[in-house]
Amino acid sequence: MPSISIKGKSMPESPIRKLVPYAEKAKKRGIRVIHLNIGQPDIKTPQIALDAVKNNNIEVLSYSRTEGSDAYREKIAAYYSKKHIHVNAEQIIVTTGGSEALSFAMGSIADEGDEIIIPEPFYANYNGFATATGVNVVPVVSNIENNFALPPIEEFEKLITSKTKGILICNPGNPTGYLYSKEEIQKLAKIVKKHDLFLIADEVYREFTYDGREHYSILQEKGLEDHAIIVDSVSKRYSMCGARIGCLVSKNKEIIQTALKFAQARLSPPTYAQIASEAALATPQSYFDDVKTEYVSRRNILIDELSKINGVTVAKPQGAFYCIAQLPIQDADHFAQWLLDDFHIDDETVMVAPAAGFYATNGLGKNQIRIAYVLDKGSLKRAVRILGEALNVYPEG
Amino acid sequence: MPSISIKGKSMPESPIRKLVPYAEKAKKRGIRVIHLNIGQPDIKTPQIALDAVKNNNIEVLSYSRTEGSDAYREKIAAYYSKKHIHVNAEQIIVTTGGSEALSFAMGSIADEGDEIIIPEPFYANYNGFATATGVNVVPVVSNIENNFALPPIEEFEKLITSKTKGILICNPGNPTGYLYSKEEIQKLAKIVKKHDLFLIADEVYREFTYDGREHYSILQEKGLEDHAIIVDSVSKRYSMCGARIGCLVSKNKEIIQTALKFAQARLSPPTYAQIASEAALATPQSYFDDVKTEYVSRRNILIDELSKINGVTVAKPQGAFYCIAQLPIQDADHFAQWLLDDFHIDDETVMVAPAAGFYATNGLGKNQIRIAYVLDKGSLKRAVRILGEALNVYPEG
Ligand SMILES: Cc1ncc(COP(=O)(O)O)c(C=O)c1O
Ligand SMILES: Cc1ncc(COP(=O)(O)O)c(C=O)c1O
Repeated sequence: MPSISIKGKSMPESPIRKLVPYAEKAKKRGIRVIHLNIGQPDIKTPQIALDAVKNNNIEVLSYSRTEGSDAYREKIAAYYSKKHIHVNAEQIIVTTGGSEALSFAMGSIADEGDEIIIPEPFYANYNGFATATGVNVVPVVSNIENNFALPPIEEFEKLITSKTKGILICNPGNPTGYLYSKEEIQKLAKIVKKHDLFLIADEVYREFTYDGREHYSILQEKGLEDHAIIVDSVSKRYSMCGARIGCLVSKNKEIIQTALKFAQARLSPPTYAQIASEAALATPQSYFDDVKTEYVSRRNILIDELSKINGVTVAKPQGAFYCIAQLPIQDADHFAQWLLDDFHIDDETVMVAPAAGFYATNGLGKNQIRIAYVLDKGSLKRAVRILGEALNVYPEG
Repeated sequence: MPSISIKGKSMPESPIRKLVPYAEKAKKRGIRVIHLNIGQPDIKTPQIALDAVKNNNIEVLSYSRTEGSDAYREKIAAYYSKKHIHVNAEQIIVTTGGSEALSFAMGSIADEGDEIIIPEPFYANYNGFATATGVNVVPVVSNIENNFALPPIEEFEKLITSKTKGILICNPGNPTGYLYSKEEIQKLAKIVKKHDLFLIADEVYREFTYDGREHYSILQEKGLEDHAIIVDSVSKRYSMCGARIGCLVSKNKEIIQTALKFAQARLSPPTYAQIASEAALATPQSYFDDVKTEYVSRRNILIDELSKINGVTVAKPQGAFYCIAQLPIQDADHFAQWLLDDFHIDDETVMVAPAAGFYATNGLGKNQIRIAYVLDKGSLKRAVRILGEALNVYPEG
């Protein structure tokens, strides 16, 4: 058999998916599994987006424009301007999900062996895109004790080498739920300007900010025009993850030209999905208000109930719809698998994402789990009750 | 401004697209441009596929399964078995176009700096995927004199080093239109087995074979199970390029497991497009018969008319819908631009793809162009007439 080389093998497995076989076995035994492990919202996609696809008149489903249609990109620019982000259509490349925008961003700024600094814990697939692109992820630790706030700037500076090409943040954060303040963004702005780095901000959860707090985008920060690259997505905003549409935004012309070459190689983003995404831009504000109200009440229930469990520490999320909980256990990987294999209440158990996969530093996050609160409140309540009871009887707990 | 590193800059520009600005200028001057440059068929997408999307009942447009749904993959396997390719659903990963399958294949078999041998001229975006993945393309020259048949096996063997991980062929070929015979596939089989290499076959034009010739897939060849990776796509087969659905097929478990990690990082292929693609599998054979008849008559007109022009050599395509024509000029890049800038008959001109971009060896293909015959016969006739007249008066001709 031909020998497969290292690169492919060094692609990390997704921490969100590696327990799937155990969940499937549990289901076969008649156990209902409450999925706290994935960020797939149960929220209805805006009708206006669904209808646009149902009413399309395509006869030849042809390639669309590589960078997305002018009309769609102009509407995206208009959306941004409402968010105090002032860009034009030429500064936007429509991508196949935020995922592809992340690949393009890494590929455009870094060469093989170059480094990107990322506060950990971070969205696990950053590892995958980095490996696929040949980029090295250099983690800087953020802590549950202060809700995963931005690590001190000195911690970043310690890690900067001649190979460092940029800093990547996720704001608000998956898996942390942390929302960076304007001051934190300004600290980052200062350091990337000082060291001539790019600042990539994954802002796919921009809309999901709570307790009256407002999102501050890197492109609202004056003077960062040449450094800032935004990664965005319609997946969570309009609960249309299956569309696979996102975008890359930068005022740096060279970045756009370079990313466009990556885009040209793969020809174009999906056509039907662009129809849905363009239509979704007309979603009324009331939709977002309702969604936000729903997530806030889910979060409150989740955090309140988790806090009641002995030995559990939880970082209160101010955005997105995830939180990290620290449990009184040694090995969340084992615990998560045990929940699926050996524990249930009334034939029901929960599936969580062990948090170690969201850290690049070996050994960190081993007693933490990530919970996505994308389920109805009843399920969340039952899930936390199951977690609490499970911790009481977990043999290695 | 932050300095962008080499990798992004070394991404090649698509030879199909680099003349676009000149075409746009011509159009602004009121010139109609006949596009011989892109492989976007004008054929109608099967109604059954379009209707499936219009009649969908999605309420939450959620992520689909990373590797594509079981139902869709089982139907793909059934399609293959009709083509004498015997695989099951677990040997198939649904991808975002053949483009993504190519990236996954390269990423899975090769590490940075590893090499893949490809007969040139080849589909230009192979360069892009290779650059993005850090793989080096090693070209082996095929010649217009023998219709771009498989180069002698010794030519491949000369190029094999410890870094060589595989051979990539396109069958039938874009841009050559060449269809490899069973004997040629067997020669390749022998060499990849002898040297422990993978054989990737881009078979996205499988259906488009002419003059009674049949496609012979690498997965029809016994003993190649561990070596063979097929790249496939619905784009051309059903004239649904905008769907962005393809697949990677291999009987090598390790390849599937590795490619799946790349797939997991990007979450899932587009949902609407999968609905269309699954439905398209029920397209009646008469659709393909009609399409084939149409392409054959287009090809015949194109080749006949081109052959009448003094000094033009053309390789007769037996598959796909492209051909390479060698012109009595020095620099097809210049000629193609001149056609757009300075030449027209009755306010009409043609846009061709200079062939140099389809070669990896510097200097090759400079007097060749690639023509896609995806237009109605009337346009093709007018286009060749324009080409002929243009060659008569072209100042550097
Ligand atoms: C932080 C973050 N970035 C990017 C993505 C990629 O999403 P998509 O490719 O669906 O836009 C996700 C998905 O969960 C995410 O959580
Ligand atoms: C030879 C070949 N392979 C792959 C592709 C990629 O097509 P897609 O990504 O639309 O499946 C093309 C498109 O023109 C092609 O010609």
